[in-house]
Amino acid sequence: MLKPRRASTAQRVELADLAPDLTSFLGQSACVQLGHFQTIAQAIETAPTVEARLALTRPAAVTLERYHTLVRELERREQDAAAVMARFSEGVDAFRQATAGRDWYETVITAYITAGFLDDFFARLAEGLAEPVRAVAVLSGESAEGKLVALLQAAIEADPTLASRLAMWGRRLVGDTMLIARAALVATSDRAADEAHIEPVFTELIAAHTRRMDTLGLTA
Amino acid sequence: MLKPRRASTAQRVELADLAPDLTSFLGQSACVQLGHFQTIAQAIETAPTVEARLALTRPAAVTLERYHTLVRELERREQDAAAVMARFSEGVDAFRQATAGRDWYETVITAYITAGFLDDFFARLAEGLAEPVRAVAVLSGESAEGKLVALLQAAIEADPTLASRLAMWGRRLVGDTMLIARAALVATSDRAADEAHIEPVFTELIAAHTRRMDTLGLTA
Repeated sequence: MLKPRRASTAQRVELADLAPDLTSFLGQSACVQLGHFQTIAQAIETAPTVEARLALTRPAAVTLERYHTLVRELERREQDAAAVMARFSEGVDAFRQATAGRDWYETVITAYITAGFLDDFFARLAEGLAEPVRAVAVLSGESAEGKLVALLQAAIEADPTLASRLAMWGRRLVGDTMLIARAALVATSDRAADEAHIEPVFTELIAAHTRRMDTLGLTA
Repeated sequence: MLKPRRASTAQRVELADLAPDLTSFLGQSACVQLGHFQTIAQAIETAPTVEARLALTRPAAVTLERYHTLVRELERREQDAAAVMARFSEGVDAFRQATAGRDWYETVITAYITAGFLDDFFARLAEGLAEPVRAVAVLSGESAEGKLVALLQAAIEADPTLASRLAMWGRRLVGDTMLIARAALVATSDRAADEAHIEPVFTELIAAHTRRMDTLGLTA
């Protein structure tokens, strides 16, 4: 039987209601952002052409700058960034391993889909932080999406047989991405342990994921 | 028999005398800088601890910013950056393959030694550009060296048996690095094809390399 912790919010829990303490939030989102950067760096390493490699350097810079902004915020609050991030790095590493992709195309769609979902997730979660943090605005600032979408659209246009493989990979990705987002909530919020509470908070994030796949002409 | 092209400089050729045209210079040094970035990204990926990974993010940002500064300079001159860089990317890729290292320690010393040597090389070469380019100042601006040195010193202190392996790797690195620097000259300067001309220009660069190895307590 559902046992709401607070009657008033039992019917509709927003992601913001599940926000963790600020230090956990910053450490976790910095760790995830560094993971995005590493995925893009992997795509730079395996890029099939010089043009593709160059196009990925801007997304690499954007994710690295986001990461550094979050770390500076931890340091400004006199937190040991490495120690805070160490609490989350194992989970993020395992997630990256699961979503690494077999080739450049899969790596690029991983960068697009998982960063899109998780940046969205952390931006919404941030709305519930006890204290608003200006640095968190980076999560919804300049994004790496445009360049990634252009690369993927060109790749699918050049080889239409990629579409079904990438659609399948996209489905696998959203599963793994939801799992890490859920784990992030459970690790830092008592209320999130109540499964019935956290299912609905993902509805909007999944809708946004579907739109991202649509942009590539792929079925989510 | 030595056959000097210009009698006045036959006895002593400076690196700056061998400067290529500006477009080649920018494309080649951007390509090399992107290679440095990729090596550091590889070290981030294989870092043994969260602290080491975090320490490498600043060098990654520095090299990426240098790269972008050089590319912006190409674009400002209405050059197609990808096309210019494509002329040099195969050589840089082969160089990176030869200097990739077998593990994290070797990758970090590669980042330190090859970037130190080549940034020095391009900074001196830049002095001979027909037209001074302010952007080129990035090559001797904030460097990634400090963090890399600290990581390597800590690693060698923690495991002194690393020293002889890394000293050996350093010797291998300087050989490969001189080869790519020499190839860079030959590709863009007629005068450099004269072997007797380019041997002496490396003397100061090798002295600087020896100092870099000294800093780690390693024999060059």
